[in-house]
Amino acid sequence: MPEAPGPADAVTPEQAAREQELVERVVASFEGAQDARLRTVLQSLTRHLHAFLREVRLTEDEWNRAIGFLTATGHLTDDKRQEFILLSDVLGASMQTIAMNNVASGNATEATVFGPFFVDDAPRIENGGDIAGGATGQPCWVEGTVTDTSGRPVPGARIEVWEADEDGFYDVQYGDDRTAGRAHLFTDDDGGYRFWAVTPTPYPIPHDGPVGALLAASGRSPMRAAHLHFMVSAPGLRTLVTHIFVRGDELLASDSVFGVKDSLVMDFEEQAAGTPTPDGRAVAGTWSRTRFDVVLAPGTVR
Amino acid sequence: MPEAPGPADAVTPEQAAREQELVERVVASFEGAQDARLRTVLQSLTRHLHAFLREVRLTEDEWNRAIGFLTATGHLTDDKRQEFILLSDVLGASMQTIAMNNVASGNATEATVFGPFFVDDAPRIENGGDIAGGATGQPCWVEGTVTDTSGRPVPGARIEVWEADEDGFYDVQYGDDRTAGRAHLFTDDDGGYRFWAVTPTPYPIPHDGPVGALLAASGRSPMRAAHLHFMVSAPGLRTLVTHIFVRGDELLASDSVFGVKDSLVMDFEEQAAGTPTPDGRAVAGTWSRTRFDVVLAPGTVR
Ligand SMILES: [Fe+2]
Ligand SMILES: [Fe+2]
Repeated sequence: MPEAPGPADAVTPEQAAREQELVERVVASFEGAQDARLRTVLQSLTRHLHAFLREVRLTEDEWNRAIGFLTATGHLTDDKRQEFILLSDVLGASMQTIAMNNVASGNATEATVFGPFFVDDAPRIENGGDIAGGATGQPCWVEGTVTDTSGRPVPGARIEVWEADEDGFYDVQYGDDRTAGRAHLFTDDDGGYRFWAVTPTPYPIPHDGPVGALLAASGRSPMRAAHLHFMVSAPGLRTLVTHIFVRGDELLASDSVFGVKDSLVMDFEEQAAGTPTPDGRAVAGTWSRTRFDVVLAPGTVR
Repeated sequence: MPEAPGPADAVTPEQAAREQELVERVVASFEGAQDARLRTVLQSLTRHLHAFLREVRLTEDEWNRAIGFLTATGHLTDDKRQEFILLSDVLGASMQTIAMNNVASGNATEATVFGPFFVDDAPRIENGGDIAGGATGQPCWVEGTVTDTSGRPVPGARIEVWEADEDGFYDVQYGDDRTAGRAHLFTDDDGGYRFWAVTPTPYPIPHDGPVGALLAASGRSPMRAAHLHFMVSAPGLRTLVTHIFVRGDELLASDSVFGVKDSLVMDFEEQAAGTPTPDGRAVAGTWSRTRFDVVLAPGTVR
């Protein structure tokens, strides 16, 4: 009689030995890698991949579905849609990699996930400029300083900021070539920076693809806690990729990509219509303001 | 000072606790999956994926390269090129899945990897016909019977066969729409079958893509031991996906997809030019012949 696949503890010692022998053959096949690091990574990947397959006793049908899932993920991915990053994000792999490579360094600002929506060529704005560029939403004044861990201001630090509009869409999701909700600027001589943006609102990660189907089947929401992305870099300091989150957002505890850190939750203070703005700009209705002081760790590793 | 990523045993207990806490959060996020099997698979995948990331202390640069690798793999994959199956193959994941789901069942013929070159609509030939359809190579007479594990012949069993030509290419790699080196036929009333093919020769798995680059960087050859693919199915019996290999092939010990099993290595007997053929067909030069008796396990699981 054929033995049906069952839990690992139902496997005979002979079968387990055959399976382990295969693992060892695959591990040995990477022995000839010139690069020792590549060898380490591939041999570890092999062991953990096979441990997973054997633990769940993956069926051939499930293997086929996994191949189909990866294929669909690859076909959806292009210059503007990175479904593999989304997959890494919802499995917590992105955040784990961030966590391992950005170990708390004194008082330096914590990092979080990069996300799939950064683009390289965002326009430059002057300090006090507006990143919205047509993105809709409540105006939000953001200001702060960039310093190193000893408190010295960092003039000329490059700050990239990007965010979704009030409907939850990044410009790259508009379906045209508009640039909106993103820009870069540089800190002034005192390390200070300031700009107008729109108050962050929660949005779903793109969920019309395989990763969205995975979330739905798992009973998970695709919603991200509201946030504003930052990437801050300066010579001789460690580049920081992070977000700031909005205190009081009910999604802080269930962010779909596990990106929230307590230290990154900021007060966004609501301002009544008519409240004078910091730069005298005329704002028709309500607006908000927040402060984010960035502390860059030493080092140049990104 | 920033702590450089290091081996897992250099991680502080506080950092390890933060990392483990993230793993538990991701595992918990799948708790709501309706389907218990999906929950099991995704929670196990999460644990093994994070164990891998943490064991090797994956760097952000390596994570980026992994995303790039998967993206390139997805973009190369289409109806005729399945780079994800190749990836699974060279990591031994395909063979491990086969091994787990086709546990030795008495005297039933062993299974091996499916490979990426099967197509659904191969032409039908009669018993004694030729699958070559223009594929070049030394003619090879293949015959045998299909029985169940109690030795009863299985008439009407469907046999799909496919193979590369003498240059190592499957028809789907020709770049046109020719069908060659593949066909299906049915066993006769005695469970017997016979057909002409070409003598299998070693060939590389497609290695001009990301998987080929992975093999090259690992010092691994892309060569597969010479083989002829079979898929044999009949009502009430377990569908068999396998190959036969050529005794004496020096690649048997280093097959790039770990597909060789001793029981699948067959004698291909070389026949001098002029040796009468089994069906009286005129063959200009040398030819070969082999016998492959297929034993199907009970059950209908594929
Ligand atoms: Fe975002
Ligand atoms: Fe093949």
